[in-house]
Amino acid sequence: MRTIDWVDGAIELVDQTLLPDKCVTLRIETVGELVDAIRRLAVRGAPALGVAGALGVLLADGEPAQVAEQIAALRAARPTAVNLAWGVDQAAAQLPRGREAVLAAALRVRDDDLAACRAMGERGADLLEGDRLRIMTVCNTGGLAAVERGTALGVVQTLHERGRLAEVLALETRPLLQGARLTTWELARMGAPHRLIADSAGPYLLAKGGVDAVLIGADRIAANGDTANKIGSYALALGAERAGVPFIVVAPETTIDPGTPSGDQIDIEDRGADEIVTIRGVRLAPEGTQALNPAFDVTPHDLITAIVTDKRVIRP
Amino acid sequence: MRTIDWVDGAIELVDQTLLPDKCVTLRIETVGELVDAIRRLAVRGAPALGVAGALGVLLADGEPAQVAEQIAALRAARPTAVNLAWGVDQAAAQLPRGREAVLAAALRVRDDDLAACRAMGERGADLLEGDRLRIMTVCNTGGLAAVERGTALGVVQTLHERGRLAEVLALETRPLLQGARLTTWELARMGAPHRLIADSAGPYLLAKGGVDAVLIGADRIAANGDTANKIGSYALALGAERAGVPFIVVAPETTIDPGTPSGDQIDIEDRGADEIVTIRGVRLAPEGTQALNPAFDVTPHDLITAIVTDKRVIRP
Repeated sequence: MRTIDWVDGAIELVDQTLLPDKCVTLRIETVGELVDAIRRLAVRGAPALGVAGALGVLLADGEPAQVAEQIAALRAARPTAVNLAWGVDQAAAQLPRGREAVLAAALRVRDDDLAACRAMGERGADLLEGDRLRIMTVCNTGGLAAVERGTALGVVQTLHERGRLAEVLALETRPLLQGARLTTWELARMGAPHRLIADSAGPYLLAKGGVDAVLIGADRIAANGDTANKIGSYALALGAERAGVPFIVVAPETTIDPGTPSGDQIDIEDRGADEIVTIRGVRLAPEGTQALNPAFDVTPHDLITAIVTDKRVIRP
Repeated sequence: MRTIDWVDGAIELVDQTLLPDKCVTLRIETVGELVDAIRRLAVRGAPALGVAGALGVLLADGEPAQVAEQIAALRAARPTAVNLAWGVDQAAAQLPRGREAVLAAALRVRDDDLAACRAMGERGADLLEGDRLRIMTVCNTGGLAAVERGTALGVVQTLHERGRLAEVLALETRPLLQGARLTTWELARMGAPHRLIADSAGPYLLAKGGVDAVLIGADRIAANGDTANKIGSYALALGAERAGVPFIVVAPETTIDPGTPSGDQIDIEDRGADEIVTIRGVRLAPEGTQALNPAFDVTPHDLITAIVTDKRVIRP
């Protein structure tokens, strides 16, 4: 199953807001529809956003000024993941050469993701030692966050295929519960043993000694190795450091942003109070409660054991 | 308003599972009803559990063997908070002297809590420096966790009464959302500025520099200062240490358990998968998903700046 693809002149993508209850494929024919899908997280995950950005350029139409405006809106639909803007730029650079060149560039972004995820899975699995590995992870970094195989969860998948996975402890990942909804769904589909935990239990379970490695994805990696990823990653990094457990970031080379010197310069999206004061439509807090909702945090490079990309292993 | 009290021969307590939507007082007339109320968290919070335990002895009836059996069941209704067993023991020790003596002992536990919370509030507020304090806290440690004023949130209340509180950042406290449901409700009632955050955002917001102190309660403090408290406390302690923010435990002396040498000997309750895979009746994860659900964690004493009790300030 592909999470996102180009089919008969439009983008088709799995609407991740409906999982795990329903697996529905949306057909996206305009940039406006795509921006909406990105904003409401029907498509999410840094690599998938890169592919969405590249394919989305094919949906821009009208006068050159209108095309430019649509491309700018797409590029800015979410601010933290570098991959979205990068994917847009890959395809948009070919606009002067015509639609066939844009299509070829966009499909290359998709196909490069397929190859990169496979390479990261192999390299990450090679890096880890041991035969009965217990892995902790946050958010969803599986096939749903990419095209077919994932980043951190791609390493888990490779470990499972090699018979070396004992169990995954998946953080539920408030507020939007990508871990509870999506990661469990993917792990169940691949037949990998797993248990769900509250986000705040992660550091404590690391201290208790039940975990061999923490694997996370990344939305943007600064030049010095500081890594922006789903909120909660930093707390796991602190817990892993204190427990002496390897903390490993798995992300394609395209996530590395040499234009950002350190994590201090990464723009962290605040997604507003609604996601905090409700869950799946159910109100949790009293009417009128205010909230702070940073969607990502930044893990300083000194807490990161290794960054595994499709090309290399970096030790910040 | 009192969270729990002895009224006309029975226990009356606010059913906290219905807050913040409804504020309903339950009348509890048997030990069986009380054990059920404790297990389903209609009454919760270490100090309130101490009072519930003491008053609950008054509800035991029947032959001496039946009374003993009911008292044992009450004492074991939740394993982690030391206060429950302690409260039971205070009242049960008077059983040979007759019902009046038991009643006097139980009411003394209640009245001692009222005085202890006031004393902790004063001492904690005196300990903190600054005039526009931004406080982070987890779970609910307010009047709802005690009789009238709380422990950590009692300090917040005293700061607010002294005009020294700028804002509280309250962790929602998955899985049972005591922060989202109860702490916000209490802060709104006292008119204290506050914002709700996802639990996993706590350590990151500490790193960002927006917090002057972390205040938490305690369910059991070992002889060496290791502190069992709501899951997520340990992650905040790690975040506070890295950020150089004081991490302060506020709890009555009765929470200190000299019979437990260190946190390693504290029994941590696992409350089962249901609380993780659902929220307020809404399913979050695929059918059949397994979960780990430690309700508490243990913060090692080296991460604790100070323990404020009703009698003293301990620096572990």
